[in-house]
Amino acid sequence: MSELKFATRLNSFASGAWRYWPELKGKPSVLQMIERAATAKGLTHLDLNYPQHITDDVKTMRLKIEDVGLAVNGMQMRWDAPEFKIGAYTNPDAKVRRQAIELTKRGIDAGREFGASIMTLWMGQDGFDYCFQADYKKIWEDAVSAVREVAEYAGDMDVSIEYKPNEPRAFAIFPNVTTCLLAVEEAGCPNLGITLDFAHVLYANEIPAYAAAMVARRSRLLGLDLNDGWGKRDDGLMAASVNPRATLEFLWQMKRDGYKGAYYFDTFPDASGLDPVREAETNIATVTRLLKLCDQLDDNAALHDAIRRQDAVTSQQIVNDIMLAR
Amino acid sequence: MSELKFATRLNSFASGAWRYWPELKGKPSVLQMIERAATAKGLTHLDLNYPQHITDDVKTMRLKIEDVGLAVNGMQMRWDAPEFKIGAYTNPDAKVRRQAIELTKRGIDAGREFGASIMTLWMGQDGFDYCFQADYKKIWEDAVSAVREVAEYAGDMDVSIEYKPNEPRAFAIFPNVTTCLLAVEEAGCPNLGITLDFAHVLYANEIPAYAAAMVARRSRLLGLDLNDGWGKRDDGLMAASVNPRATLEFLWQMKRDGYKGAYYFDTFPDASGLDPVREAETNIATVTRLLKLCDQLDDNAALHDAIRRQDAVTSQQIVNDIMLAR
Amino acid sequence: MSELKFATRLNSFASGAWRYWPELKGKPSVLQMIERAATAKGLTHLDLNYPQHITDDVKTMRLKIEDVGLAVNGMQMRWDAPEFKIGAYTNPDAKVRRQAIELTKRGIDAGREFGASIMTLWMGQDGFDYCFQADYKKIWEDAVSAVREVAEYAGDMDVSIEYKPNEPRAFAIFPNVTTCLLAVEEAGCPNLGITLDFAHVLYANEIPAYAAAMVARRSRLLGLDLNDGWGKRDDGLMAASVNPRATLEFLWQMKRDGYKGAYYFDTFPDASGLDPVREAETNIATVTRLLKLCDQLDDNAALHDAIRRQDAVTSQQIVNDIMLAR
Amino acid sequence: MSELKFATRLNSFASGAWRYWPELKGKPSVLQMIERAATAKGLTHLDLNYPQHITDDVKTMRLKIEDVGLAVNGMQMRWDAPEFKIGAYTNPDAKVRRQAIELTKRGIDAGREFGASIMTLWMGQDGFDYCFQADYKKIWEDAVSAVREVAEYAGDMDVSIEYKPNEPRAFAIFPNVTTCLLAVEEAGCPNLGITLDFAHVLYANEIPAYAAAMVARRSRLLGLDLNDGWGKRDDGLMAASVNPRATLEFLWQMKRDGYKGAYYFDTFPDASGLDPVREAETNIATVTRLLKLCDQLDDNAALHDAIRRQDAVTSQQIVNDIMLAR
Repeated sequence: MSELKFATRLNSFASGAWRYWPELKGKPSVLQMIERAATAKGLTHLDLNYPQHITDDVKTMRLKIEDVGLAVNGMQMRWDAPEFKIGAYTNPDAKVRRQAIELTKRGIDAGREFGASIMTLWMGQDGFDYCFQADYKKIWEDAVSAVREVAEYAGDMDVSIEYKPNEPRAFAIFPNVTTCLLAVEEAGCPNLGITLDFAHVLYANEIPAYAAAMVARRSRLLGLDLNDGWGKRDDGLMAASVNPRATLEFLWQMKRDGYKGAYYFDTFPDASGLDPVREAETNIATVTRLLKLCDQLDDNAALHDAIRRQDAVTSQQIVNDIMLAR
Repeated sequence: MSELKFATRLNSFASGAWRYWPELKGKPSVLQMIERAATAKGLTHLDLNYPQHITDDVKTMRLKIEDVGLAVNGMQMRWDAPEFKIGAYTNPDAKVRRQAIELTKRGIDAGREFGASIMTLWMGQDGFDYCFQADYKKIWEDAVSAVREVAEYAGDMDVSIEYKPNEPRAFAIFPNVTTCLLAVEEAGCPNLGITLDFAHVLYANEIPAYAAAMVARRSRLLGLDLNDGWGKRDDGLMAASVNPRATLEFLWQMKRDGYKGAYYFDTFPDASGLDPVREAETNIATVTRLLKLCDQLDDNAALHDAIRRQDAVTSQQIVNDIMLAR
Repeated sequence: MSELKFATRLNSFASGAWRYWPELKGKPSVLQMIERAATAKGLTHLDLNYPQHITDDVKTMRLKIEDVGLAVNGMQMRWDAPEFKIGAYTNPDAKVRRQAIELTKRGIDAGREFGASIMTLWMGQDGFDYCFQADYKKIWEDAVSAVREVAEYAGDMDVSIEYKPNEPRAFAIFPNVTTCLLAVEEAGCPNLGITLDFAHVLYANEIPAYAAAMVARRSRLLGLDLNDGWGKRDDGLMAASVNPRATLEFLWQMKRDGYKGAYYFDTFPDASGLDPVREAETNIATVTRLLKLCDQLDDNAALHDAIRRQDAVTSQQIVNDIMLAR
Repeated sequence: MSELKFATRLNSFASGAWRYWPELKGKPSVLQMIERAATAKGLTHLDLNYPQHITDDVKTMRLKIEDVGLAVNGMQMRWDAPEFKIGAYTNPDAKVRRQAIELTKRGIDAGREFGASIMTLWMGQDGFDYCFQADYKKIWEDAVSAVREVAEYAGDMDVSIEYKPNEPRAFAIFPNVTTCLLAVEEAGCPNLGITLDFAHVLYANEIPAYAAAMVARRSRLLGLDLNDGWGKRDDGLMAASVNPRATLEFLWQMKRDGYKGAYYFDTFPDASGLDPVREAETNIATVTRLLKLCDQLDDNAALHDAIRRQDAVTSQQIVNDIMLAR
C-alpha cells in the first residue's frame, strides 16, 4: 500500500497556533499551515479551499507545497462571502447566482494550475431554513443546472458533489446519497461524481458502506473524507474513533469497488485544540491498519457466505476475530 | 370541498376497547373496528391491511363496510409473519422472497374485489441492522425487481411505495424520498408512485413540502398519510399537533400539484389510549380548516413574491397573519 | 472472571420459533423459552417480566429454571394492560395509578419467591406525547411518589429505575441519567438505584461511561443492559456491534466503580429473525473479550495520564493498540 | 403588556452589513451594530457578550446604548480564545481554568458597570468529544466548583446556566435541564438559576414547557432565549416559525410560574442573510400575539380539565380554536 495518497484538511493546522508559533499574532498564514502540515509523517497531499487558501500567487504556493514535499490533491469550493449566505447556486438573485458559478470556474482554473485533478463542491449555502421560504422545484433546478455548467466547464477535470444533510442551512438541497445520484443523473455529465464524507453520511442516517455501494451502482466515487462522529451532527472526529466497524466496512466496500483516490481526513482538531500533526499521523496509522484488515475480509469465505445469508451473528463473530485484539 | 375523501387507520379503533366494549374479551374483531370507525363523523374511507384485516370473506366485509356507509380506499401490505422478519422482498431465502411477492399479488387481487384503486407498499422488513450483514447492491436490486414484478401484475391498479427511514429494521432499504424516486425510475412502471407519510418524512429529515415537490417533479404522489411527530421517530400524533406550519405548507404544495387522493390519517391513538373516534374527527376538522387557509395562500401575491426572493421574514409575517388567530 | 453473571432477555428466544419448534402453533410458552435459553453456553441467569412471564405457579417455574441450570437475576415490570397505555404511575385516573403501584408490589412479592434481588422499573408508559396534554409538575410528583412507595415496600430488595428517552410515549417522564438522579434524590430511599441500558443511554445522547460515572457519584448502578445501537433509537443490537470503543469505556468505568451485578443482554434477535442462542453466545464472548482488555487499560499509566490531560489523540493511539488487531 | 422587555442577539445585526453599510470594509463595529439594533421597533434591551463586545470603554458604550434608547439586559460569557477550546471551567490545565474563572469575574464587574442584573453562562467549551478523553467525575466537579465560585463572587447579581446538548463539543458537560438542576443543587448558591433556550431545549429532546416546569420546581428561571428549530440542532430560527404550539405552551408555563425577565431572541438571521431589523420586529410581533393568547388559555376551564385528564384530543381541539385562524 506504499502508494496510498493521504491528504488532510489544511485549516486543522491552525490548532494550538498560540503554542506552535508563540510569536504569532492572530492566525497563521496559509503558507505557515502548509509548512506545519508537512511535518505530519505519512501525509502526501493537501486540498485547497477556493478562494480562501489562494493567498499568494499560485506559483509561489505551488513551489512551497512541492518544497515541503507535498502535492495538491484537489480544490474545494467555499462560498463564504456574505452575499452567498442565502444561497450560492440557488441564490434568489440571478446576479449573485452567476457570481457563484463564475467563482467556481475560477477555482477550476486555479486547480488546473495546481495540477489538481478534482474540484469538490460542498454546496453548504444551498438549501432552506424555513417553511414557505423557497420554491423547492426552482431551487432544485437552479442547483442542478449550475452543477452541470461547472462540470461542462471543467472538461477533463473531475467535479464531485459532497453532501451533508444540515448545517449551515437547516436543510441542504443535496442532503444524502440518493439525492446526489438524482442530481448527477439530471446533470448528465460524465466527469461528475460523488464525494462521501464519513461523518456526513452517518449524519444523513446512512451506513457508510451502503452509501458507497449506491454510488458505485449509479455514479463514481471521486472523493472520500474520512473522520468519525456520533451520527447526530458533523463532529469531525478522528477516523474510527467512534465507529471502527462501520469504518472497516466502508473501506472494504470502496476497495472492492476499486477506489483509487486519496484518503482525505476532514477532521477538526482545531475545534477542541488537539495537536493537528499527531492527530493526522494517528488517522493515517488507523486507516493503514484497517486497510490491512480488509485483505483478511476478502479471503474469508465464511464471511462472504454469512453476508449472502444476511446472518449478522456469524459475520459479527468473524469480524470480531479479525478486527479486535485477542 | 364536500367531496374530499377522509380515510383512517383501522387498527386505531382498538383503542380503549375495554371501555367501548365492556363485555369484550381480548381484541375487537375487524368487523367491530369497522363499525366503530363508521361512528367518526366525516370519515368516508378505510384502508385494509393485507392479509391481517381479511378475517372474513371479502363479500361479507364489503357489505359490512358499505352497510356502515364507508368505502375501501386502498390496500396496505403488512408482512408480519415471522419468516419475513429478516426481509420480505429482500429476504436472503429465495423461497421466502417469492412468498412475499406472491402474497402481494394476492393482496392486489383482494384489493380489486374491494374496489380499491391502490396498493401501498411500506416495506418495513426490507433493510439491515448491522454492518457486514448485507450485500447492499444485491438487496437493492432484489427490492426494485420485486416492486417491478408486483407493479406489472397490478396492471391498471396503482402501486405506491411508502418510505420510512428506520424501524423495525435499523436502516430501511427505501429510507427517504429520493431513494424512492431512484427505485421508481429503475423499476420503470407507469402505475408506480409514492406515498408520503408526514411523520416518516420529518423522521427522514425532510421538510414535507420539499418531499411532495420532489415527488411531483419525477413521479406521482399516490397517497398521503397525515399525522405529526417530533421529527425523531414515527410518533403517529394528530395532524398539525406539532407542526401546523409545515402541515399547511405540505397541504398547499400537494394542492398546487393537483393531488386528488384521500387524506388518510396514520395516527396511533391506541398507543396512548386516546378516543379514536374523537381523534379522527379532530384530524378531519384540523385538515379541513388548513385546506381552507390554502386558498388564502394561493391568492396572496406578496407571499408568492417573498418565496421567489427566499425572504423568510416576509413569508413568516404573511403566514402568521393567515394561519394564527388575532 | 469465572463467576460473572450473564443474563439475557427471555422473549428473544421466541425468535425463529417456526424453525426451532416446527410443530408449534402460535408462540412458544415461557417454559419453552426458558428451555431454549438454557442451551446458550455461558448463560447463567434470566430476568422475568412481571406479570407477563408468570404463566405457571412460581414453584413450577422455579424448578424448571433450576432444572435447566439457570437462576433468576431479577424481575422487570411491564405495564402492558390497555388501561396503562396513558400512564402507569402517572395515570390521570387515581384508581388505575393505584393498580399500577399494587401490581408492582405483587411483582416484588413474586421476585422474593424467585429469589430475585432486584426489581427493575422501566416506566415506559409514563410520559406525554403532546403539548397541552399534561401538568408536568403533577406527573413528575406522581412518578416520584410511586417509586418511593414501591421502594419502601421492597424493603431489603433493590429497586432500580431504567430510563429511555422516548417510545412508546413521545417523551418519557424519566428520559436520561440526571433526571433519574433527581428522582432518586427526591424519593430518598436507600434501596433505590439506576439501571443503564447501553442503547437507551446512546439514544439519550449520553456517552455510556459518562452516565455510569454520574450514577456512581450520586446513586448506585444496580443493573446493566448491554446491547448496541445507532444512537437514534432503541435498536437492541448485539453488544459492541456498532460502538466497541464506547462499550469498552463503559465496561471499564463500571469495573472501576465496583459493579458486581449481572451482565444482562437486552437485545432483539427476534426483531430480525436471528438465532437467539448463537446471538447470546456471541454477546457473552464479546463482553468477556472486552472485560479482559479492561485489565490492560487499568495498567496503562500513559492512558491515565492522557485522560488527565484530556489528550484524545494519545488515548486514541493507546486504546487502538489495546483494542484492535495488529 | 406595555412593560415587557424585548432583547435580542447583538451579533445578528451584522447580517447583510454589505447592503446596510455599503461603504463598510470588513465587519461592523459593536457600536454600529448597537445603532442598527435600535432601529428595530419594540426592542428595549441588549445582551452583551463578554469580553467580545467590550470594544470601547464601558462609559462610552453605556452612553451610546442609552443614546439610542436601549438598555443592557445582561452579560453573556463567551470563552472564544484558543486556549479555552478544550475547556474553560473544565480545562485540564489548572492555569487556563483559573483564567476562565477570572475572566468571568471581570465580566461580572463589567456587568455591574452596565447596570446588568444577570450574567449568563453558556459553557460551550466544557465537555468532551471522544471516549477515553476525560475523567467524567473530575470535569463535572471542576464545572460545578467554578460555577459556585463565580456565583459567590457575583453576590447580589444573578448568575444563570444555559444548557445545550452538543456543539461545539460533541457532548456538553451540562446538556439538559435536569443536569443543570443537579449542578445548581451541588453548587448551592441562592443567586444561581437557569436560562432556557427554546431551540437548545428541543435539541435536548425536551418539550420546552416541561423544561420550564422542572426549573420552576427546583430552581429559578432567570433567562429565556426565544427562537425555534427543527429539534436536531441549534437552528436559531424565528420564534414560532416551526413549533407555534410548543412556543405557546412554553410562554403559558412561564407566565403561570411568574417569569418576569426579558424575552431575548437568540436567532441567527446573519446565518442566512435575513434582514435582522425586520426579523427582530417579526419575533416581537409573534411573541406579543402568543402572549395575548395565553390569557384565553388561563380562562379556559375545559382546557384545564382536559390537561388534568391528560386528554390530548380535547386540548388539541381547544388550543386549535384559540391559536388558529378560522
